[in-house]
Amino acid sequence: MKKPYVVGMDIGGTNTDFGIVDARGNVLVKSKIRTDKHIDINRYIDDLHGELMRLIEQVGGIEKIRGIGVGAPNGNYYNGNIEFAPNLLWKGIVPLAKLMSAKFGVPVALTNDANAAAIGEMTYGAARGMKNFIVITLGTGVGSGIVIDGKVVYGHDGFAGELGHTISVRNNGRMCGCGRTGCLETYASATGVARSAREILETTDKPSLLRNAAASSITSKDVYEKAIQGDEVAKEIFQYTGKILGEALADFVAFSSPEAIILFGGLTRAGNLIKDPIKEHLEKNLLKLWQGKIKLLTSELRESDAAVLGASALAWEV
Amino acid sequence: MKKPYVVGMDIGGTNTDFGIVDARGNVLVKSKIRTDKHIDINRYIDDLHGELMRLIEQVGGIEKIRGIGVGAPNGNYYNGNIEFAPNLLWKGIVPLAKLMSAKFGVPVALTNDANAAAIGEMTYGAARGMKNFIVITLGTGVGSGIVIDGKVVYGHDGFAGELGHTISVRNNGRMCGCGRTGCLETYASATGVARSAREILETTDKPSLLRNAAASSITSKDVYEKAIQGDEVAKEIFQYTGKILGEALADFVAFSSPEAIILFGGLTRAGNLIKDPIKEHLEKNLLKLWQGKIKLLTSELRESDAAVLGASALAWEV
Repeated sequence: MKKPYVVGMDIGGTNTDFGIVDARGNVLVKSKIRTDKHIDINRYIDDLHGELMRLIEQVGGIEKIRGIGVGAPNGNYYNGNIEFAPNLLWKGIVPLAKLMSAKFGVPVALTNDANAAAIGEMTYGAARGMKNFIVITLGTGVGSGIVIDGKVVYGHDGFAGELGHTISVRNNGRMCGCGRTGCLETYASATGVARSAREILETTDKPSLLRNAAASSITSKDVYEKAIQGDEVAKEIFQYTGKILGEALADFVAFSSPEAIILFGGLTRAGNLIKDPIKEHLEKNLLKLWQGKIKLLTSELRESDAAVLGASALAWEV
Repeated sequence: MKKPYVVGMDIGGTNTDFGIVDARGNVLVKSKIRTDKHIDINRYIDDLHGELMRLIEQVGGIEKIRGIGVGAPNGNYYNGNIEFAPNLLWKGIVPLAKLMSAKFGVPVALTNDANAAAIGEMTYGAARGMKNFIVITLGTGVGSGIVIDGKVVYGHDGFAGELGHTISVRNNGRMCGCGRTGCLETYASATGVARSAREILETTDKPSLLRNAAASSITSKDVYEKAIQGDEVAKEIFQYTGKILGEALADFVAFSSPEAIILFGGLTRAGNLIKDPIKEHLEKNLLKLWQGKIKLLTSELRESDAAVLGASALAWEV
């Protein structure tokens, strides 16, 4: 193969991770630069170019690189722009794919992080061979990548798959960063788990190991650790999170009738503590015709490489 | 064109309507037989063959027919079967496309009625030129046909697009025919409107023209007629129905980011009485990025021919 490698790159609020990947999904070399130190997008591109070219030289130079795939918050696949990303310093519309392609001289494809994860699962992970599935990313927020008939759904404008912003609690729901209330993301993300913990500690007097720390500092990791130790309140929080998620997933199935739903991201580290209640409430809420038929899977991408791998998979299609 | 016509056929619980359609969507001839008089599927196929061949002879014989498209409740596009349709006399799995194709000697494609409507809108109606849209059928139940990238979404098993069975009211929702509670269909269908009327008449003592008839006999048509006469309760019922629908549609947009949502079927006859509140609550519940951008349209297919036209459009693809 003349151009045997692709670059995968994941832009987060703090760091930008990137690596060079072969056709089997091996990450050959990887590195990172800070995202949040670059208010000026052109300086960011310059620094990125310096560090990424260093890696590229290690694998034989730019002529070995087929393309660059980028996962970024609010990334629009159709035009390669990052559009109004609330967690990045660059405001408005950033034509990232165009800027990078001009700098590196190779094709650059961009999409949001959840779509990148879906392509990653299809190419290297739990969805190999599947044509219809949904990836739900459970991190700081809740994202989704929907695949129908072997293709990621981008919709009319490139922004399809905002399932974290479907409404789980119609009345008196939690305030969401999007300006509305009751979004799935306010319950089923890592942040949502921490909010649930604070809520239950404040509104009940149930004894819990979680009371040993200040309520405001509780994280989803704390809840996980206490649940492992057998703390009833912590286990109840995962039950509740799983119930909200299971109910939401049942509605998603009614939309696209996927073969599988694949859970991805930080919250999946809680394992069966979260997966069991999701499964239970998914089944309880499915239409009869789908009961027992929808696979609930966890990402098979090695976690440390997952975001880079997902984005890199996009570059094979450019 | 050697084979200039297709047959469109719509199987309802009471009647089976069919017609012969040209490439411009003109229904040249049409007729019907009773569905509910045929417990034996083979007798049904025989009677259908007799009546439909009579029409086919009028347009020049079977060699003029490219194929037959059928819309049927619980119709599965992948295998041409009607599977466990609650409102039909034929129980279990009926291999309708196979039976008809053997009898008529032409290709037969089958899907559910809402998907047929979506293909009809794309071929002849309000969605001409669109690649991403959702048709919502508001009849006795609520159905949906989802088009992404110019193709109807069938999903892994052929049953995608059951949006009438997403949950609108999570707690204390209305009992649905599917065995669960709170489904969109129990609120936003013609039946749902009648249920809303009975509910409001029973639980309040607001004066209303709807009280002139027995509550148990009220239909959505009655509610429409009283609303036109200015009845406040009747208008309130459409407001409520539109609110439930608008909220649901906003979640559907988050899934596939369509260019338009097209309303189809009996309840759309209420015009702006229903469309205005749908629009209002759709906009109110959309993520900011979609506000003001999603077209809310009403079917442009002539209502008397719509079901047959929709199904016929499927036959161009066989």
